[in-house]
Formats: sequence, C-alpha cells, structure tokens
Amino acid sequence: MDKTAYMEAAMEEARRALSQLEVPVGCVIVENGQVIARGSNATNHTRNATRHAEMEAIDNLLHLCQSAHLTQQQVAQRFAACELYVTCEPCIMCAAALSLLGITRVFYGCANDRFGGCGSVMEVHKHGSGPCGNNQAEEKGRGFTCVGGLMADEAVHLFRSFYEKGNPNAPRPHRPLS
Amino acid sequence: MDKTAYMEAAMEEARRALSQLEVPVGCVIVENGQVIARGSNATNHTRNATRHAEMEAIDNLLHLCQSAHLTQQQVAQRFAACELYVTCEPCIMCAAALSLLGITRVFYGCANDRFGGCGSVMEVHKHGSGPCGNNQAEEKGRGFTCVGGLMADEAVHLFRSFYEKGNPNAPRPHRPLS
Repeated sequence: MDKTAYMEAAMEEARRALSQLEVPVGCVIVENGQVIARGSNATNHTRNATRHAEMEAIDNLLHLCQSAHLTQQQVAQRFAACELYVTCEPCIMCAAALSLLGITRVFYGCANDRFGGCGSVMEVHKHGSGPCGNNQAEEKGRGFTCVGGLMADEAVHLFRSFYEKGNPNAPRPHRPLS
Repeated sequence: MDKTAYMEAAMEEARRALSQLEVPVGCVIVENGQVIARGSNATNHTRNATRHAEMEAIDNLLHLCQSAHLTQQQVAQRFAACELYVTCEPCIMCAAALSLLGITRVFYGCANDRFGGCGSVMEVHKHGSGPCGNNQAEEKGRGFTCVGGLMADEAVHLFRSFYEKGNPNAPRPHRPLS
C-alpha cells in the first residue's frame, strides 16, 4: 500500500466521525505496512475536548501494547517503528503527545491554520515536547518528521460538510419566543 | 484554605508518585474551595508517556462530569470555574489540554526549564490551543492565567530524591558480564 491508501483509511475514520456528528478528523497508525490502530474524533460523544482522533488511535495502540505485556522500552520501540496518518494537521496537544510517545513519522491531510502544532502555529514536531518535570535527557520527547498535503482537498471537503450542517454542540444563537 | 494548602494537597500526590517509583509530580483541581479531583504522574506504571499528573486529574474530573450526565456545555462551565494546582509547570501537551478544556486559572510549583508550556519554552497558556481541524471561533481553546513559584523548593526536592534513587525505567548503562 502507498501513503495515499493509508490516508484513505484515515479518511474513512473521518467519515465515521462525520456520521456521528463529530468534527470529522480520522487517524490510523501503520506498522510494517499494516494498519494496527484507528481513531476518529470523539469530543462531542465523550464530552471530553481532548479526545482528538490521534489520542483515540494512540490509546488503541497502547491498549494493544498493554495486552501484550510490553515493557515501557518495548512500547517506545513499537511507537518509534510506526507511521501515523491523520486527515488534519495535529494540534499542539496532539503534536506534543506524539513527541512524548516517540512517533517518528507523521503524515497529515490539510493544514490547521489556526491551531496547528506542526508548522502552522507552533513547530512542536521540530523540537519535540517532554514529560512534565522530567529533566533526564534520555526521556526527552523528540521531534518527528511531519509531511502535510496528502488528500488535503478531501479533508477540507469533510469539514465543510460538517460546518454546513452545523456543529450540534456549538452554542446556539438566541431566538425570540414565538 | 489558601493557595499553599491546595499546593500541599498537590504535593501529597507528588509524594505518592515518588513512593510508586514514578516521576514525582502531583496535581489537584479545586472547585468552590474544595479539592474535587486529584492526579499523580503514572507514566511508568501505565507505560503510557502521556499520563502526566494533570491528565490523570483531568480524567478524574471528567469521570465525575460524565457520572453526573453533564452536557458538553456544562462540562466546559465546570472546568472554567475550577483552579488547577500542579507541583511542576505543565508541559506543552498538558498546557494545550488545559486550554482545550477551558481551565482558567493554574498555579504551579517549580518551573520546567526544558519542556515547560507555560512560559519556560512555549507560552501555550497565553494564546491557548484548539481542537484539531476545528475552525469555529466558539470552540477555540483559550489561554489561561498561570502563576508559578508556589512551594517550588519542595517540588525540586522531590525531583532530586527521585533522580538520586535512579529512574527505574530509564535505559541502563551496559555492564560487562562477570
């Protein structure tokens, strides 16, 4: 499979989010050419503003690692060997989380001009993040390679579909009583 | 209770982390003068590098909100009314997550010179973060007030205790076979 096929798999997840009235972002994690974890944005359903597609996919892979009783070092090695595909540029939080987990390669669809953490607003991918209160160099969150523009038009089209319908969880304008 | 008393509660959580061989960072969330959620760093135990003290405390409060069947808007209002106390400056990921959730006031102990997201390396608290792929102004992650230096010496002392013992999950130097 080529990169477009993996992004198409992420796009499927974004379409699933759209069908569930969620902001349509989807993500897959690929290891040795196989999609091993998926996630779609779930902020509305969970009422948790941090449940972005990347965080859902990450947690699904972590669950696999925990089920396999991997050590912390093995978990880090597994993440380092994976590629992550997401339909929209990771935000600052997601970019920092990916850095902490040691992902090395990220591909995204459209840019996130207002909130992007991989070049648009901040460059977390270049410098990496790091654990709270951890001053040990060996545990530093590292930077990662990040390439955008894969199926960007399709990603933007999904956002437009969502916002044309109206985000069901956005505050409503006041209407006069009839 | 004054701010020092809340930070002392966060410090208790950091001591709990230390006793469990975790990087010693602790956090509490305060609403109407009451500690309503607690968290301590759990990255080693969970083998998940994103389980910082703030994320643990946030998830505990979200669990309370979900149990009470709060709407998404009510969850946001509840977070906006809370103060968060953490023994070390939030990292970039945690600062962005706190912004997404709408926390308005954060107090921390010692600075995080290498990875801090609230002034030391990046100023996420000033500008806020935002949802991946979300271009709607009403859902923007906002900035928050962030004040450091509460019981900073005690926070640093706990880190020193941890690193003097040696982080059990740091890579070990190779030793010759005897």
